[in-house]
Amino acid sequence: MKIEDYIRDIPDFPKPGVIFKDITPLLNNHQAMVETTDQLLKLVGDSKIDKVVGMESRGFFFATLLAARLQAGFVPVRKPKKLPYQTIAQEYDLEYGKDILEIHADAIQKGEKVLIHDDVLATGGTAHAVCKLIEKLGGEIVQVNFLMELSFLHGRKKLEPHQVKSLLQY
Amino acid sequence: MKIEDYIRDIPDFPKPGVIFKDITPLLNNHQAMVETTDQLLKLVGDSKIDKVVGMESRGFFFATLLAARLQAGFVPVRKPKKLPYQTIAQEYDLEYGKDILEIHADAIQKGEKVLIHDDVLATGGTAHAVCKLIEKLGGEIVQVNFLMELSFLHGRKKLEPHQVKSLLQY
Repeated sequence: MKIEDYIRDIPDFPKPGVIFKDITPLLNNHQAMVETTDQLLKLVGDSKIDKVVGMESRGFFFATLLAARLQAGFVPVRKPKKLPYQTIAQEYDLEYGKDILEIHADAIQKGEKVLIHDDVLATGGTAHAVCKLIEKLGGEIVQVNFLMELSFLHGRKKLEPHQVKSLLQY
Repeated sequence: MKIEDYIRDIPDFPKPGVIFKDITPLLNNHQAMVETTDQLLKLVGDSKIDKVVGMESRGFFFATLLAARLQAGFVPVRKPKKLPYQTIAQEYDLEYGKDILEIHADAIQKGEKVLIHDDVLATGGTAHAVCKLIEKLGGEIVQVNFLMELSFLHGRKKLEPHQVKSLLQY
């Protein structure tokens, strides 16, 4: 089974000129979902993971599945004012302007081993902000793990020195 | 293990007078996450399920885990303009005003057996809209399944004649 067969290109979404990679067919097909989870787990290898952190919203899908399989807890990183308890925040740059991500202040304990997962690595701005949040809480980032990587945007560079792995490169 | 010990009350969120049920501690603890998934699966029993539908965003967490365990596909229902492919939409009433939910038009095939999952059953407005979406696509709703039910809001009544099950009643 080729995972890429279950990812569909949507031209001009969310704006003209962008080709969006739609992973809903991958989730819709049980075998494809399991195969993707298996392959993402292979990227992690034998590393011990205490917490899997997923980014709102598309990062949630495989991050929860990875947490279940790795016998880890799951931690959501969300946009401002979505998390109800005490949070810490991290600002990051967008193409135009800035945005903020939040994590619950008690979500990661000092020294816990963390796997960060998101669906797409583009410029790396979001993932970089999440790395900073984890580090502020004293977590140890084992790997930053993506389903897809848009290599031409060099987001991997921004995440140094963390280990970055992705299943599919475009 | 008592699941309710991992759900925390947040007073005055998202607005004064509301006590929000925060399920992030339940996801943060691996054993609690597994126990919750197991108990939600028990609600489903031996029913065959082809697709598990989860509602943005907190419904996504356990809906993906349920899909993985039920050998089913996972289908997200999202707020407007989030799903990139062809969608169908359903309007529903809020306390003040209206909102819209969308599902991909090809997400459910005619006759497929569907489990709908969300974290909380309140007035039932959201779940009712999702039921309509599934029915428009020709899916057969096997059960509407919640982690928590705010019984005093009588949302269950709104979802008749569908089978409604919830793990925890408040």
